[in-house]
Amino acid sequence: MTTSPSAALATFASQLRYEDIPAPVLRRAEDLLLDTLASILAGAGARPVQIMADYAQTMGPADGPSEILVNRRRSTPLFAAMVNAASAHVVEQDDVHNGSVFHPAAVIFPPALAVAQALGLSGKDVLTAAVAGYEVGIRIGEFLGRSHYKIFHTTATVGTLAAAVTVGRLLKLDPEAMLNALGSAGTQSAGLWEFLRDAADSKQLHTAHAVAAGITAAYLARDGFTGARQILEGPQGLAAGMSSDADPKRLTDRLGQRWALAETSFKYHASCRHTHPAADALQAVMREHHLQADDIASIEALVHQGALDVLGPVTNPATVHQSKFSMGTVLGLIALKGRAGLAEFDAALADPAMASWRERTTMSLDEEVDQAYPQRWIGKVKVRTTDGRELSAKVEEPKGDPGNTLSRAEIEAKMRSLGVYGGAARAEELQNLIDTVWNLTERPTVGVLLPA
Amino acid sequence: MTTSPSAALATFASQLRYEDIPAPVLRRAEDLLLDTLASILAGAGARPVQIMADYAQTMGPADGPSEILVNRRRSTPLFAAMVNAASAHVVEQDDVHNGSVFHPAAVIFPPALAVAQALGLSGKDVLTAAVAGYEVGIRIGEFLGRSHYKIFHTTATVGTLAAAVTVGRLLKLDPEAMLNALGSAGTQSAGLWEFLRDAADSKQLHTAHAVAAGITAAYLARDGFTGARQILEGPQGLAAGMSSDADPKRLTDRLGQRWALAETSFKYHASCRHTHPAADALQAVMREHHLQADDIASIEALVHQGALDVLGPVTNPATVHQSKFSMGTVLGLIALKGRAGLAEFDAALADPAMASWRERTTMSLDEEVDQAYPQRWIGKVKVRTTDGRELSAKVEEPKGDPGNTLSRAEIEAKMRSLGVYGGAARAEELQNLIDTVWNLTERPTVGVLLPA
Repeated sequence: MTTSPSAALATFASQLRYEDIPAPVLRRAEDLLLDTLASILAGAGARPVQIMADYAQTMGPADGPSEILVNRRRSTPLFAAMVNAASAHVVEQDDVHNGSVFHPAAVIFPPALAVAQALGLSGKDVLTAAVAGYEVGIRIGEFLGRSHYKIFHTTATVGTLAAAVTVGRLLKLDPEAMLNALGSAGTQSAGLWEFLRDAADSKQLHTAHAVAAGITAAYLARDGFTGARQILEGPQGLAAGMSSDADPKRLTDRLGQRWALAETSFKYHASCRHTHPAADALQAVMREHHLQADDIASIEALVHQGALDVLGPVTNPATVHQSKFSMGTVLGLIALKGRAGLAEFDAALADPAMASWRERTTMSLDEEVDQAYPQRWIGKVKVRTTDGRELSAKVEEPKGDPGNTLSRAEIEAKMRSLGVYGGAARAEELQNLIDTVWNLTERPTVGVLLPA
Repeated sequence: MTTSPSAALATFASQLRYEDIPAPVLRRAEDLLLDTLASILAGAGARPVQIMADYAQTMGPADGPSEILVNRRRSTPLFAAMVNAASAHVVEQDDVHNGSVFHPAAVIFPPALAVAQALGLSGKDVLTAAVAGYEVGIRIGEFLGRSHYKIFHTTATVGTLAAAVTVGRLLKLDPEAMLNALGSAGTQSAGLWEFLRDAADSKQLHTAHAVAAGITAAYLARDGFTGARQILEGPQGLAAGMSSDADPKRLTDRLGQRWALAETSFKYHASCRHTHPAADALQAVMREHHLQADDIASIEALVHQGALDVLGPVTNPATVHQSKFSMGTVLGLIALKGRAGLAEFDAALADPAMASWRERTTMSLDEEVDQAYPQRWIGKVKVRTTDGRELSAKVEEPKGDPGNTLSRAEIEAKMRSLGVYGGAARAEELQNLIDTVWNLTERPTVGVLLPA
């Protein structure tokens, strides 16, 4: 075995043991799993997800060991993971790792659960495999750099490799076989941003393709199918073809010491991430000064340039999706409802009160906020009250980022909200799911999460 | 509908009718289909193909409407096409289009057959769909250019799109849905040459992945799943990410008038293509002068520089695969056996007579041959006979290229040789298969090709 970066990653992923992972990282992995299940259930009603579920029925077996969570059917791990992964990314509430611009959960937990269910593996196995997938995937995303992300959807491209590593760990691949799995996954790595221009459904295909390719790569490697040994850094490998600023040092950055999984952010509000810092600051100023919505005459959100670029054009949103890019709508929901979740956005579009909140809200560029970006997303607002006071608040890190992460109560609340949104589960089932995840390490086999 | 190149290709593929296709193109499509079936059967015994077949059994249903030709099992079109496509490329005897450096057959006929079997479609439907796949795929390969081929395996990357178009035509997608299928296929486009460095099994994965991605794209599009509308030429599309010399004009080059399918070459000898011109020239000189092997004292092959680069180092082949790159072995087989097929190479490695043929054979650079390359692959040899004569021959185009294509008798002979090689079929079954293909247009449904 050489000591190439690819080989080092394969060896790390193959040899990672549950006992090696610090407890806070394991607990965060459980948080991320529950958060992902919430996103999968929330996407269940979406048209692209339904089409993918139909496709699974057309091409896959009628039954199997693995749950398709969105429709309570069962299939082989391949199809269960494909449909669940397609659903995980729909409501855009899944996690993100800022440095790699990679959404790991959507491509790691669906195959982890599906394969563990098929092989009768334990909760600890799932967590260990997911951590391996996060650590390898995030480092590959960082390695591929900004030039990659300009054209390629990193969650799609890196997703094949993260999924392969996760499944490879569950299949107990040795370092050599894990390297073959990386090779076979990397040579299937794909996903272009071009679909954004047409608001096409490709994001759901990207996560489904990534987990399908990753599962295929890992299962083939288990049976002796070989792959390129330096698929990441080789002269005709992933970076050679799809990056111009790749940095191989990032691939093995403090492997086993730095836990990249714990650096991922949860998404708390159901809106564009650029609105989150101001939303958090508004919540802070209202809490501190005991303000009600009626007390607020106007709001000035102090933002970074990127927020002005993305949100500025949205003055009169015509769709629910667009309203999530309207700072006035987001802050209006925070002021009126105390939260900006999926259901609030659905109702807001037809609510005439929202127009007045868009009129009361302005954005302006703030030097401190802009200079800190993108390393830190500072939130600042100024509020003028109806009785003439000028109040302000500052939030150093938006809710959900590693330094201001969600409590388990907040994750549970998000689960209860998202879990019923797509009509895929009832409240008592969600409570069972919550209990299952918090006690995952005690389950000798993962078993069924949502009985039919 | 815009008139972007992507839209023009989608419209062409959607609206192509059997009646629009010239008869010689249809006959050539039948030739290519039989040639592909030969390659699929020849690869049946290969380890990577067996692993892929096992994977299909693990993830797919136990039965289905589509034939896995290599093991006589049945499955859904997805898995049947994956395994057959993996097998089609193993013995490297499948077709090639020189200008696009694309091997269309391996990624077009497996999904065409599997989907037609599943949907109960006719032989004419299969031919029409295959022609659509060839015309679109070859043009996309030409569009992506040489820079793409340096890093990416065009048969893998373009294969997703060619397969999607082929299946989309069988699904009778309208132009809008076909454009969505292109979008979904292109965003799954993948396949890196890095595996060559390690002689890894990725070539078989590449064709399997291409057909799986293409089938998925087409079936999703049928049900309304949308994709990018300019996945090929858009600013974050395939060429933007994976080519630096893409030429959009190539995409729509004489659509409906130029039939690129008829430009593809068959592979006649089972050796590196660089040996073929000299092999053909040796056959010519032996035929013309009624030479037997014993009459030949020495052979000088007059070649282009690329042949010297690739074949020159192979002086004493240690494996069957390497012997296919040994000019002396190839010309020795032609002299002794009259052919250089798969079985001849398997036997040649242990045959002590071959060493003397390698000693009798030399290569030298020929100015005329070298200047014509790569547009034309001229074959020239000089033979010195044991009775002291100096004889020579020149072949303008190697056997199998469009201007010197295989007769149906030659294709049948190739089929009989390859078809039994992998142990996947018996001689009488091959005759049935030959009859089926030559009468394909009369079949109202494709039906079963190789009964269990």
